Amino acid sequence: MIIVMQSHCSPEQVENVITFLEDRGLNGHLSQGVERTVIGVVGSVDITGSNGVTPELGESLEGLSGVESVLRVSKPYKLASREFHPKDTTVKVPVACVAGGSVTIGGNEVVMMAGPCTVESEQQLFTTAEAVRKEGAVILRGGAFKPSTSPYGFRGLGEAGLKLLDKARKEFGMAVITEVMTPTDVAMVSEYADMLQIGTRNMQNYMLLDEVGRTRKPVVLKRGMSATIEEWLLAAEYVLAQGNPNVILCERGIRTFEKMTRNTMDISAIPLIKRLSHLPIISDPSQGTGSRDLVTPMTLASLAAGTDALLIEVHPNPDVALKDGAQSVTIDQFKTLMPQAHAIAHAIGRKFVTD
Amino acid sequence: MIIVMQSHCSPEQVENVITFLEDRGLNGHLSQGVERTVIGVVGSVDITGSNGVTPELGESLEGLSGVESVLRVSKPYKLASREFHPKDTTVKVPVACVAGGSVTIGGNEVVMMAGPCTVESEQQLFTTAEAVRKEGAVILRGGAFKPSTSPYGFRGLGEAGLKLLDKARKEFGMAVITEVMTPTDVAMVSEYADMLQIGTRNMQNYMLLDEVGRTRKPVVLKRGMSATIEEWLLAAEYVLAQGNPNVILCERGIRTFEKMTRNTMDISAIPLIKRLSHLPIISDPSQGTGSRDLVTPMTLASLAAGTDALLIEVHPNPDVALKDGAQSVTIDQFKTLMPQAHAIAHAIGRKFVTD
Amino acid sequence: MIIVMQSHCSPEQVENVITFLEDRGLNGHLSQGVERTVIGVVGSVDITGSNGVTPELGESLEGLSGVESVLRVSKPYKLASREFHPKDTTVKVPVACVAGGSVTIGGNEVVMMAGPCTVESEQQLFTTAEAVRKEGAVILRGGAFKPSTSPYGFRGLGEAGLKLLDKARKEFGMAVITEVMTPTDVAMVSEYADMLQIGTRNMQNYMLLDEVGRTRKPVVLKRGMSATIEEWLLAAEYVLAQGNPNVILCERGIRTFEKMTRNTMDISAIPLIKRLSHLPIISDPSQGTGSRDLVTPMTLASLAAGTDALLIEVHPNPDVALKDGAQSVTIDQFKTLMPQAHAIAHAIGRKFVTD
Amino acid sequence: MIIVMQSHCSPEQVENVITFLEDRGLNGHLSQGVERTVIGVVGSVDITGSNGVTPELGESLEGLSGVESVLRVSKPYKLASREFHPKDTTVKVPVACVAGGSVTIGGNEVVMMAGPCTVESEQQLFTTAEAVRKEGAVILRGGAFKPSTSPYGFRGLGEAGLKLLDKARKEFGMAVITEVMTPTDVAMVSEYADMLQIGTRNMQNYMLLDEVGRTRKPVVLKRGMSATIEEWLLAAEYVLAQGNPNVILCERGIRTFEKMTRNTMDISAIPLIKRLSHLPIISDPSQGTGSRDLVTPMTLASLAAGTDALLIEVHPNPDVALKDGAQSVTIDQFKTLMPQAHAIAHAIGRKFVTD
Repeated sequence: MIIVMQSHCSPEQVENVITFLEDRGLNGHLSQGVERTVIGVVGSVDITGSNGVTPELGESLEGLSGVESVLRVSKPYKLASREFHPKDTTVKVPVACVAGGSVTIGGNEVVMMAGPCTVESEQQLFTTAEAVRKEGAVILRGGAFKPSTSPYGFRGLGEAGLKLLDKARKEFGMAVITEVMTPTDVAMVSEYADMLQIGTRNMQNYMLLDEVGRTRKPVVLKRGMSATIEEWLLAAEYVLAQGNPNVILCERGIRTFEKMTRNTMDISAIPLIKRLSHLPIISDPSQGTGSRDLVTPMTLASLAAGTDALLIEVHPNPDVALKDGAQSVTIDQFKTLMPQAHAIAHAIGRKFVTD
Repeated sequence: MIIVMQSHCSPEQVENVITFLEDRGLNGHLSQGVERTVIGVVGSVDITGSNGVTPELGESLEGLSGVESVLRVSKPYKLASREFHPKDTTVKVPVACVAGGSVTIGGNEVVMMAGPCTVESEQQLFTTAEAVRKEGAVILRGGAFKPSTSPYGFRGLGEAGLKLLDKARKEFGMAVITEVMTPTDVAMVSEYADMLQIGTRNMQNYMLLDEVGRTRKPVVLKRGMSATIEEWLLAAEYVLAQGNPNVILCERGIRTFEKMTRNTMDISAIPLIKRLSHLPIISDPSQGTGSRDLVTPMTLASLAAGTDALLIEVHPNPDVALKDGAQSVTIDQFKTLMPQAHAIAHAIGRKFVTD
Repeated sequence: MIIVMQSHCSPEQVENVITFLEDRGLNGHLSQGVERTVIGVVGSVDITGSNGVTPELGESLEGLSGVESVLRVSKPYKLASREFHPKDTTVKVPVACVAGGSVTIGGNEVVMMAGPCTVESEQQLFTTAEAVRKEGAVILRGGAFKPSTSPYGFRGLGEAGLKLLDKARKEFGMAVITEVMTPTDVAMVSEYADMLQIGTRNMQNYMLLDEVGRTRKPVVLKRGMSATIEEWLLAAEYVLAQGNPNVILCERGIRTFEKMTRNTMDISAIPLIKRLSHLPIISDPSQGTGSRDLVTPMTLASLAAGTDALLIEVHPNPDVALKDGAQSVTIDQFKTLMPQAHAIAHAIGRKFVTD
Repeated sequence: MIIVMQSHCSPEQVENVITFLEDRGLNGHLSQGVERTVIGVVGSVDITGSNGVTPELGESLEGLSGVESVLRVSKPYKLASREFHPKDTTVKVPVACVAGGSVTIGGNEVVMMAGPCTVESEQQLFTTAEAVRKEGAVILRGGAFKPSTSPYGFRGLGEAGLKLLDKARKEFGMAVITEVMTPTDVAMVSEYADMLQIGTRNMQNYMLLDEVGRTRKPVVLKRGMSATIEEWLLAAEYVLAQGNPNVILCERGIRTFEKMTRNTMDISAIPLIKRLSHLPIISDPSQGTGSRDLVTPMTLASLAAGTDALLIEVHPNPDVALKDGAQSVTIDQFKTLMPQAHAIAHAIGRKFVTD
């Protein structure tokens, strides 16, 4: 950590900073430059606070009089960082329909997760599941608890939806991923689901992160719509810090000034996360674009950039979907998408689990 | 609702849209323009869904083939809108120290809410409360449950913090406002607090909104850091829809590309909310700027733009604050701020409760 | 165009809007809905203003009393739109080193444009040109006039730089693309360059757009860093309206809250532009990310999403580059990138010009 | 300048950075921390490049292998900074109608600049000028050259518009401010105008900044719609570096995700600029909000936050304005606004020039 003092700061202000550091078991190393005084913090600032130095140290220093800015040299996350854990993390998910009975996310093989945005009925879910399974999807997505911007909107079938997902899992041998929205639902959702999804609006719902961190279920953590890469990794750190190592990050678009797409997919986040973290990174082009016609090109782009899996909304009849019909691809579109996705995967030396 | 068809759409696609509407008890009024076919939806689309038409109708229409875009003519919120409820809502808060035993937020009088970001100790809280009370604040703010970006950061004293707030209330005759972060805490926090605060990260935590909606406590709903005005009003609608009319909106800055301030305060949201809604709107210049030196000018700007109350972080010794020291003003700064705030209030024909 | 009136508007306000339209040779078609009065504009609103109705009509209507909002049904650009011109535009560029003496941008073949950010010396330029030519680039990029955020920064070699580019063209048989920054330089730059580049800061420099529109040189129009897709197409319309049909759009990242990359590349703009416009669309992953290590994955993602060409910064020794060294790939990195780019192109059924 | 090395960098990479610095006449001071190696740059890095070290040094260092990030300790602008020039700059503008024949911008007195968005006719201009003059405006705004997003839009009357402004100046004794859009127009516009305005789209039109820097006319430099505070001050530095000290900054809103207002006015930029720079800062609530009804509250907010002047669009009949009617206030609204503006100015201990 490096403290830059204001250009006309007084010797007392510098002294005060040094004392502040010493009170916390640290030392300040003074550099009197031509332009400014800079104080380097000597001693380890463990960001987990385990040496008594709190993560808020930087903020506190910024508040001291005479301080212009504080530059953090080390990353604010640890368990999620590649520095701390250089080897790729892989997350194993039980999938009955594949040889060996499981798939691995974060290895060389790419995984397709597909299904309806929201579970609406057994018929809708089963038709979709059967179709996407046939094309090579091995994990079934479907929302039972849905965040709705309007209080009058459809909020999902709840536990009845979970039961349908469970039934579909048995029928088609797929794993099931579904969203959990509040801490008290984690236990129930975990009974039915193989993977827990944390939605974009809940990326900083810390009590929910704590709770899924106490399970050992794979957690797909969607990027908050205005979350920086660093905040996203800190949210992953919450889950990891509770002891659950099975965290998968999911890029799903960020909020920008451009409104022609629902969100702006930040494809560069895929290689960036690979560099900064050992965690798998996957991509949701349905939420990322909000537009059915953009799902295929953004699926291919995500694959080319290195995504470990895809999460795609498919609906047998998007025109009557209860939610997000405009961004769900049809079964026919999904059939056309898959061979293109395979071709891109091969082009970069990877293959789909079901290849 | 108005449906704009693609320029080369087929008669079958138009027919399909008309049928889709009729299946839902609505009619489509066709306008064949020079440039495009436009379909006006005839019949009432009650956004509360009480006539069987769901709020997702627009989304569903956007997914129909041949449809280019769907224009919503009416607002997606109802209880929060000034159209539905033209008269200003005022929220009464019990405050022992003022004549009459309560203050009203949203009327002609302006209210000062001040206190530490986080409750750290009895001494810190009491020193601050005494000082801000003396200068004219009547509501004491202080966090017992704190959202921390890092899992290793300080997350507040919890119920012990609430007890200190309660003690301070009795001691200084102030009302207490504090944050509640998860549905299961609502009952407990409500025992100690006069006003419940929903933080920026929880603006779309719908189960939490439902839960505070079931109480009758005044709720201060902070704007999500990337929430549009419309999404913010829809979040208020959640609380109102559960029967709690005591909702107060709070502008606290939005996330933009500018990083020199922690957030960019959208002061224009104050008059905009006044126009669109009957709910009171207040301002948090501490979170809004993240910088102690900007709190006074942004307090004055908020008042000039019409804010109904202010929420300001004050710390007896910001240099040692456990959280957000850089944005807390000192007691001396607060003393200087108050007479300026009074002068601006008078200039626009308002006055502070304690005037 | 559709005019939505405020919910409590008066009959006089409606009448006033109708009269306003009639004064301009248009008619208003009134729809009295349950929720609101809506006025459809009948008669053609030619956005080129050639029927006497100005493009500002919408804005003027928004200013009328009682009007809540104005919805534009047709697109504000014409020459750039796929509706007006359904067939793909292809732009031919003379390139001595390829069979036939030219390449086509916007057809099935993909084109690689590469070279240094800035022309620094003959040696730097020639080393780079030779290397990228050998790997399959056919168009040489290099800045002679450079926008520098600081007035004290390097602003390019000017005409001397253009002369070096011209010399390199002759030596290596490549076409040359370079930036032009001000109208009075267009003639001179056109003497040396085969393609004119309009930089992100000049996307709305209308007098410059007019001037390059008066030439017939291919124009690469970079997206403004905060330009919407619509504003970008309107900027293209400026060039097209002057009679120059050879416009190529270039996605180079937009400004968002995320600062870990220099810009956020909006890969979805590639398929979106293909849908809205007939103009070729290319991609600049060097400017788009600002980081050397992200250039390869974002090149591959752009290709998978359908880009027609790539613009990549290469430097023989990025460590001593005068500008943007951090985002220039080395010659070795470029050598590794090209076969991967070929593989992705093949996977989607395209190939590079030099295949 | 401080260089942070990657956590696993090699001794050779560190050595290479040191050599790179020494080649440029600087020294690197090595700090081997627990977490990382940090290299402080010793020796003065004059950002004007006058000691041979270019402003791109930071970028170049970021490109060196093994470097994680480069932290700039000093500000990248000099002439515009308060550190270099602690005393407030005031800009004198000749105004015939006031006692003394001039007004000062940046002192204790506040200045009102008002007039139509665009000069449309003598009658429109004179009616407006007379009305705003009567209410206390002393500088007349009006566009003769207008940036239009559409090539088919109204682009202003050109020199004929300038002549009308000149005539109005003589008639009403006001100073005239008008926009200049391209370097070759600077001389002509300067003949007619007392102040030159650089519009938001041209904030980084460097050749235009150079050219107005060669005059001694007061220059009002609007903030680019996606410009950071730092980029804005660097644009001011361009003008100052050419020898023109009369630079006035103008906040006019930035582009964000919120679309209910045309832009989001960053009121906090007013006190921030006052802290970072000695230059006057003014406010344009018409462009800043795009909505007539928000002009008054945002005028008052700007004043409360410390603006030195206001730039307000007024139109005698906004319903028929050729441009930006929706954001122009009527003469009646302007009459109501002025006494409120006076009251706020008094509340913070300032007054209007004409008080």
